[in-house]
Amino acid sequence: MTIERIIDKKRLNYRLTKEELAFAVNGFVNGKIKDYQMSALLMAITINGMTDEETINLTEIMLNSGDKIDLSSINGIKVDKHSTGGVGDKTTLVLIPLVASLGIPVAKMSGRGLGHTGGTIDKIESIKNFNVKLNMDDFINQVNSIGVALVSQTGNLVPADKKMYALRDVTATVESIPLIASSIMSKKLASGADKIVLDVKVGAGALMKTYSEAKRLAELMVKIGNHHGRETVCVLTSMSEPLGNAIGNALEVKESIDTLKGKGPKDLHELVLKLGSIMVSLAKNISEEEAYNMLEENLNNGKAYDKFVELVEAQGGDINSIEVSDKCISIKAKKTGVIGDINAYKMGEIVRDMGAGRLTIDDEIDHGVGIVLSKKVGDFVLENEELLKIYVGNKDVNVNEILDCYSSSEHFFDKSPLIIEVIK
Amino acid sequence: MTIERIIDKKRLNYRLTKEELAFAVNGFVNGKIKDYQMSALLMAITINGMTDEETINLTEIMLNSGDKIDLSSINGIKVDKHSTGGVGDKTTLVLIPLVASLGIPVAKMSGRGLGHTGGTIDKIESIKNFNVKLNMDDFINQVNSIGVALVSQTGNLVPADKKMYALRDVTATVESIPLIASSIMSKKLASGADKIVLDVKVGAGALMKTYSEAKRLAELMVKIGNHHGRETVCVLTSMSEPLGNAIGNALEVKESIDTLKGKGPKDLHELVLKLGSIMVSLAKNISEEEAYNMLEENLNNGKAYDKFVELVEAQGGDINSIEVSDKCISIKAKKTGVIGDINAYKMGEIVRDMGAGRLTIDDEIDHGVGIVLSKKVGDFVLENEELLKIYVGNKDVNVNEILDCYSSSEHFFDKSPLIIEVIK
Repeated sequence: MTIERIIDKKRLNYRLTKEELAFAVNGFVNGKIKDYQMSALLMAITINGMTDEETINLTEIMLNSGDKIDLSSINGIKVDKHSTGGVGDKTTLVLIPLVASLGIPVAKMSGRGLGHTGGTIDKIESIKNFNVKLNMDDFINQVNSIGVALVSQTGNLVPADKKMYALRDVTATVESIPLIASSIMSKKLASGADKIVLDVKVGAGALMKTYSEAKRLAELMVKIGNHHGRETVCVLTSMSEPLGNAIGNALEVKESIDTLKGKGPKDLHELVLKLGSIMVSLAKNISEEEAYNMLEENLNNGKAYDKFVELVEAQGGDINSIEVSDKCISIKAKKTGVIGDINAYKMGEIVRDMGAGRLTIDDEIDHGVGIVLSKKVGDFVLENEELLKIYVGNKDVNVNEILDCYSSSEHFFDKSPLIIEVIK
Repeated sequence: MTIERIIDKKRLNYRLTKEELAFAVNGFVNGKIKDYQMSALLMAITINGMTDEETINLTEIMLNSGDKIDLSSINGIKVDKHSTGGVGDKTTLVLIPLVASLGIPVAKMSGRGLGHTGGTIDKIESIKNFNVKLNMDDFINQVNSIGVALVSQTGNLVPADKKMYALRDVTATVESIPLIASSIMSKKLASGADKIVLDVKVGAGALMKTYSEAKRLAELMVKIGNHHGRETVCVLTSMSEPLGNAIGNALEVKESIDTLKGKGPKDLHELVLKLGSIMVSLAKNISEEEAYNMLEENLNNGKAYDKFVELVEAQGGDINSIEVSDKCISIKAKKTGVIGDINAYKMGEIVRDMGAGRLTIDDEIDHGVGIVLSKKVGDFVLENEELLKIYVGNKDVNVNEILDCYSSSEHFFDKSPLIIEVIK
């Protein structure tokens, strides 16, 4: 078996065996197979695709390339939630304490942001002194004592994915559904949860631009999860505008707190209840409707927010010290009309460039900067009425670039639904 | 312009502009674009292809990446000849003195062998003390004085091709017709000849396995040549068995000498006259028939061989010292029958592994080893009649592996023609 033969086979659009995929991936991880050979193979896969069987095999090989988290010492069914990446997506921050407030253990590992989307770990660090670096024992002990913990990814989880993703990012091989599925699922499987809920974003602001692509990805991930005995549910959701109103780390934490108190923006509130209902129904083996009612109750009675405060305190954070920039500019609409579209991808990039995110893994983050939308898609806005607020840091902001993210509509219209389909 | 965007464009099967191709190739040559990015782009090109316009542009960019040989101080029309690589292909050795014997200047630069095919420079070095390293002035002076010179490739010709080819070889991106065409033509154009004759091999033993692939490559190379004002003619020839009887450096030189004396094997003799006729008709602007007769005459009257001796002496070689191994084994046929097929590719690999060729550029060559076929495809052979001779060196030879290259036919059959088509 040689890597040249394996690459050639995929170039000619033949299926690769599990042994061939293992030879390629493991050889790449241990350095015997070179970057330039792996990138050629990844390009052949990206163009010619892989069968579901190949993708399942690749996921398993990637999963076995590193450590696996063992959550068996936590009582109860652990349900993990993951999003394929959205702008203004703070659902994890809300869901963790909300689900935990119903007595379901939540042992959450999250990542940092890179590119146009943020990361839960960057967001939670807007809370002064919040410690995301617990060791494994403390992590598990905290879940067993207060029912919830949130840490940054630890250990040597799926090194194959780390190395392959770094290469894909610079070789135009990110947009491959089988590679995306095996990247996400190998990490979710390594994280040790019993069941998995995935929020697959669809639209111009997301990795999956069309419904059919998103559906294919979702079906594939469900298949991979089930193959490993981990029940997996995917929710296809629209990313035709930022989620909620706030974009930027501290601003998103504040909006999460509002949502935990039952006063969140409509779309975020709706998505949290949908994803939460699925998580709770999986964990407690009850109907989604029952779960929905329990969740809604805890948003209204303060228990969800209390659990959040408990989580923050357990990890050393100061809930009263969330650093939002005090330099706030209000931007007014230039003309009267209905908002037709907000380019989430572009807005994500703008907020990142303001200092909220990273271009490279070493960039420092300014937690206080960001944007809060006063109007969303479908809203009517008068000339000179406030369109958004900008929370500025040390970097220049080009207001016209932000306004270019908006298009206007001549007429009122029915907004397309946020929740498109559930695939399980 | 970023390399990621360019790779992505080709991944999605869009055309690349000349500026984009130049950005990629020049960036790769100067090290700004990484190996793993170039290999991803090369894979996307190999799978999705390129238009003729893209291929013409790529060739021009590669050509301009290094030095170009100026042969204008040699009087007359210079015609270069190149083969896409065959087993036992010593036509260049015969053609150089043969064409020069008609007063046509031949300034030939050749390469060394790599993989399953040999190289003219390795072959000529079987002649003791033959110096292939002339400087440019001596090279041109020799052509002006005796009408012919043969040197190894010199100067920094097409560094883009050297670097790209090294990468293609280990990333399964060799088999791309646009990439093969631009690789061959950029080197031919850089070598400075006025007109170009290309022998495109077709068959199991060649890079082009099928007639249609070979034809596409030939048409593309003719188009590229004409675009640069260099009349180009391609001859499609069959590589369904080794060319001539001898495979191995010194053995091939001896067979070339026989052929120069008009006593060569039928197929080699036929191919030399065909390619030579085209070269001479292009150089002298006469008909192919006229050229054919002149060439045949010089094979029979000794002038072609005399020119070879003159060439060898001018470059310091000793024509009486051609080192063939004295350890010769005669292999007999195991049964009576007609030879149906001889796997040229496999036989090329066997002879290479005996020491006649290289696996890596640093391998030493044993000029004396090789195989001489006593029977060819379509020949009748009796049990225990000689099938071939093996000239052995220091390395072991597996006779059964050699015999495995043969298949037998139940009946006599008409051999398919050696010369398939001329494309111009």
